[in-house]
Amino acid sequence: MNLPRTLELAPLGGDLDRVERALEESVRHRDRFLGEVASHLVGAGGKRLRPALTLCAAYASRDGSHPVPADVVTGAVAVELVHLGSLYHDDVIDEAETRRGVPSVNARWSNIVAILAGDFLLARASELAASLGADVAALLASTIGELCRGQVLELQHLFDVERSEESYFAAIEGKTASLMATACRIGGMVSGADDDALDSLGEFGRHLGLCFQIVDDVLDLTATEEALGKPSGQDLLEGVYTLPVIVGLRSSPTLRDHLGRPIPPNRLDEIRRLATSDGAIEAAYDTARSHAKAADEALASSPGLDPEVCTALRRLVDGLVGRSS
Amino acid sequence: MNLPRTLELAPLGGDLDRVERALEESVRHRDRFLGEVASHLVGAGGKRLRPALTLCAAYASRDGSHPVPADVVTGAVAVELVHLGSLYHDDVIDEAETRRGVPSVNARWSNIVAILAGDFLLARASELAASLGADVAALLASTIGELCRGQVLELQHLFDVERSEESYFAAIEGKTASLMATACRIGGMVSGADDDALDSLGEFGRHLGLCFQIVDDVLDLTATEEALGKPSGQDLLEGVYTLPVIVGLRSSPTLRDHLGRPIPPNRLDEIRRLATSDGAIEAAYDTARSHAKAADEALASSPGLDPEVCTALRRLVDGLVGRSS
Repeated sequence: MNLPRTLELAPLGGDLDRVERALEESVRHRDRFLGEVASHLVGAGGKRLRPALTLCAAYASRDGSHPVPADVVTGAVAVELVHLGSLYHDDVIDEAETRRGVPSVNARWSNIVAILAGDFLLARASELAASLGADVAALLASTIGELCRGQVLELQHLFDVERSEESYFAAIEGKTASLMATACRIGGMVSGADDDALDSLGEFGRHLGLCFQIVDDVLDLTATEEALGKPSGQDLLEGVYTLPVIVGLRSSPTLRDHLGRPIPPNRLDEIRRLATSDGAIEAAYDTARSHAKAADEALASSPGLDPEVCTALRRLVDGLVGRSS
Repeated sequence: MNLPRTLELAPLGGDLDRVERALEESVRHRDRFLGEVASHLVGAGGKRLRPALTLCAAYASRDGSHPVPADVVTGAVAVELVHLGSLYHDDVIDEAETRRGVPSVNARWSNIVAILAGDFLLARASELAASLGADVAALLASTIGELCRGQVLELQHLFDVERSEESYFAAIEGKTASLMATACRIGGMVSGADDDALDSLGEFGRHLGLCFQIVDDVLDLTATEEALGKPSGQDLLEGVYTLPVIVGLRSSPTLRDHLGRPIPPNRLDEIRRLATSDGAIEAAYDTARSHAKAADEALASSPGLDPEVCTALRRLVDGLVGRSS
């Protein structure tokens, strides 16, 4: 699923191309090796959902006018660099071999290089944010802190069959929703949106992020490897018990018997089937839909935002719930 | 060696206590575990050389007046947090077991936790820097990028018997001198120093950093484990060929025969002795002294800086060259 395409906003394609070029430029470095490593994942593509959110938030704050000023593109790049930098570190943490169809940085070079290059991408993001003013720099920095907190929370509950929904939501608020909220907010900040509009955009991004992550977690259980582009069931193998599994654990003693410890890979499919029965998937989708609705409502509450752009953003959220990969 | 004590500046003790309290405060977190991990190295103490530089740069920019305003303390904390965050990642990279007499974060918890907590400290540093304005935020962010570049450069030349002095200096410029320069510059920026004074402070910090690192690298070869507080010869074991070794390699074919590959630990002392003969140590000290002199001269060139503070800073640099641990 190419997410920004579902936005159906005419100017988005052109502005996303500008983001792409600015992204490539931002990771160029006089040190050839560092430049090569830093640009590795940029070159591998990706949905660019976060930059698309920054651009759309800017359109919404500017009566739909486009192309956006260069500062908006810079904000979109800063947000994507934070995402990419965190992926470099995630892949070290998960010992991932591939990412977006190419070898991960840790696999191609080493963990050491991936840690340093991830730090470099986060630093470049902070530098770009600072060029947009102290408020944007402060917001992006605190968001990086939230990302860390979300991931630490997830780590603390690996293989925890007692994991609560609260713990799950606190983790995904940090690791996913915070940066989506910031992506939207920065688009508004750089466009001079007022505080009400910024709050609406931030809440929209936050609920969109929660919805996105819940669907992601469901798909990890239900989608085929072909659709996902990576093996499914990874969360179960890593001991990350996501919303559908938490729901399933409440009603299925059999599932509980199988979890709480590493799964033998040859039993993964059986356990995956157990985790997807008894309405757990539908319950997770209900929750995802409630966040999609909250995202809709966040936009509806701000008169300062362009209605046409808001309609397109609502369609994006609906598309997220229905996506299959 | 407790470096700031050699500064003999009356107000420094009180202001460093404020930095210490603000450091502890800065890593407190509503998530108890993240707070505990983030404060682990803060609690283990350290020389606090970088915060001392920020404070002194502020004294020098404010006619010696003290105590410094709260913003200077914030700047000092931001700089130290960058240093600490990079140590968390260094210890993962070096697989270090201890740091400052306590277990390293990676050893006590895990590499994963150390990576995330290091990210968190860097993010907190960026957030504090943003509270001091976009210029400080931009400078700190670009300095974090320089740290990464310096470390990547070092990695690229592990076990490289052809490593040049240029490569060595480019690496230590990035990994040590850049943050010392920034520590000084921020002290001046927050105190309203003019551009000339800022350049002088930055050059002072840069040369001090180069001098500090060269002496550090010499001591790794010459000092006892007791004086260092950690096993000596670590650089040789890790394949990091520092200035004295680069000098020694030029004149000693025997040394060259032993290097270029991992050293069996039982031959370390013999190779360490080889690397410290033939005047290589004295040559490295000569270079360190030339940077001490350049640091002196940088301060002398700025009429806007308080002469008494500058004298104390010069004594600090002289103390660095003569230190034995």
